[in-house]
Amino acid sequence: MIMASKPFFKGRLIAIGGNEDKSDELVLLKRVVQEAGKTDYKVCVITAASEDPEQRGQDYRQVFTVLGASRIEILSIKERAQANDITLAKKLEDADLIFLTGGDQLRLTTIVGGTRIFEAIQNRLETGAIIAGTSAGAAVFSDTMIYEGQSEDGLFKGSVLTTPGFGFVEKIIFDTHFMARGRIGRLVQIVTMNPICIGVGVGEDTGVVLKGDGYAEVIGTGQVIIVDGSDIAHSNIMDIKQGEPVAVENVRVHSLVNGYRYNFQKRRLLIPPDNKPENTDD
Amino acid sequence: MIMASKPFFKGRLIAIGGNEDKSDELVLLKRVVQEAGKTDYKVCVITAASEDPEQRGQDYRQVFTVLGASRIEILSIKERAQANDITLAKKLEDADLIFLTGGDQLRLTTIVGGTRIFEAIQNRLETGAIIAGTSAGAAVFSDTMIYEGQSEDGLFKGSVLTTPGFGFVEKIIFDTHFMARGRIGRLVQIVTMNPICIGVGVGEDTGVVLKGDGYAEVIGTGQVIIVDGSDIAHSNIMDIKQGEPVAVENVRVHSLVNGYRYNFQKRRLLIPPDNKPENTDD
Repeated sequence: MIMASKPFFKGRLIAIGGNEDKSDELVLLKRVVQEAGKTDYKVCVITAASEDPEQRGQDYRQVFTVLGASRIEILSIKERAQANDITLAKKLEDADLIFLTGGDQLRLTTIVGGTRIFEAIQNRLETGAIIAGTSAGAAVFSDTMIYEGQSEDGLFKGSVLTTPGFGFVEKIIFDTHFMARGRIGRLVQIVTMNPICIGVGVGEDTGVVLKGDGYAEVIGTGQVIIVDGSDIAHSNIMDIKQGEPVAVENVRVHSLVNGYRYNFQKRRLLIPPDNKPENTDD
Repeated sequence: MIMASKPFFKGRLIAIGGNEDKSDELVLLKRVVQEAGKTDYKVCVITAASEDPEQRGQDYRQVFTVLGASRIEILSIKERAQANDITLAKKLEDADLIFLTGGDQLRLTTIVGGTRIFEAIQNRLETGAIIAGTSAGAAVFSDTMIYEGQSEDGLFKGSVLTTPGFGFVEKIIFDTHFMARGRIGRLVQIVTMNPICIGVGVGEDTGVVLKGDGYAEVIGTGQVIIVDGSDIAHSNIMDIKQGEPVAVENVRVHSLVNGYRYNFQKRRLLIPPDNKPENTDD
């Protein structure tokens, strides 16, 4: 088995697949807040990915008010100058939860990449905060970020465009809205190109909580699909031209749901104790 | 390895993923015609799956005229009485190629299932003709036919509805428009419920030619995805309620493109000689 991630942080990374429930039972977001481990938590919402940051900010202010946050800061960052603003960056220093909204991941890296805000987020991850991102806000987590690629073309060479993300973890590729948008081809193509990468396709209203020890736990109402290329025996991908269809043999796929865990170091799925055969009667 | 299919026929089954090119280069349909192995071939087009059978019939009459058919019969069957008509059924007796158009697979089985037309198709498959079907026309090939199921819900228990198909092959589940509609969840669910089944997800403008010896070859411009449950180690599917998300460990997935073959008996992918490592220089 090949080690994929090199986590070293004390905090938690929570990648959410987008479209999480914000008005009904809030199952997923309640669970995200729970990870903070305290009731008087401070949340900072970064809306830089969104083209309508004011509205997004208002939406999440309402959600986190319902979820009992003691302090809520909305960082409505629209340009790099703001992302380098010392006063804004300082607001993150005592955040228990930093939440990156959806929108366009390329917008997020272009505006925030390498700035003081970026450094502050990374610092909080290392020192113990929860960094949660949904949709575009989760796509940026890895060193390799998918920013473009039609689902239906996912298995044609060159159809999936990637660029450097925030690099909070290495060699794990996060994709979101995964089943809803039928995106598995995108992850299979990337994993085929370099099987050291593990693809993590997060479903809507679903999340994956990644800890610094390399273990992840699935939360929420849908599935997280793991695409593991360890067993790939053959592929045509280095021999074909751009736009041609990709052949690949032996991609290993798992579907994980709430409570299931995954060991990224050993590439192994961990079944919740309640679901293990020895605990079933029939 | 578990044997999946029990083919016994002298003919060929060609499952096409829908949306095959009918006006440009006709790459896929030319290849289908090639399988007939002669230039003066007779084709019968069965439009029973379609709600607009006249238009479909005209379209394929034009296509097969371009493709040099010596005789073209359009069987525009709209009800079971027609499907039981001896004169219509007789037209199939000397067909070299029987082509089932797209539409609704449930319409096709409901109208044609168990009729003289059905028997005539099966008889021609056994005795040496090509039976090709596209989209709905391919979905009916197996003993288990998917007839309903939103792609995005494919990994929620009970979301994929199946019913008996024509049963030309056993324990192979054909799905179509596969990458275009992101349907892998549907096949994963069925294969998880009974890993003896092999899922075959055929892409648009792509086909799989299945021979009586249990070997299949991929043709066309896209991919055929094989979903093999032989290695499944764990699933929650027998313990969860309808509508709950499906967990499953170790689903083996292959993507095959033009020229690749698959041995359904041994569940093994076969790489075309040109693509084998020993034939590459660099």
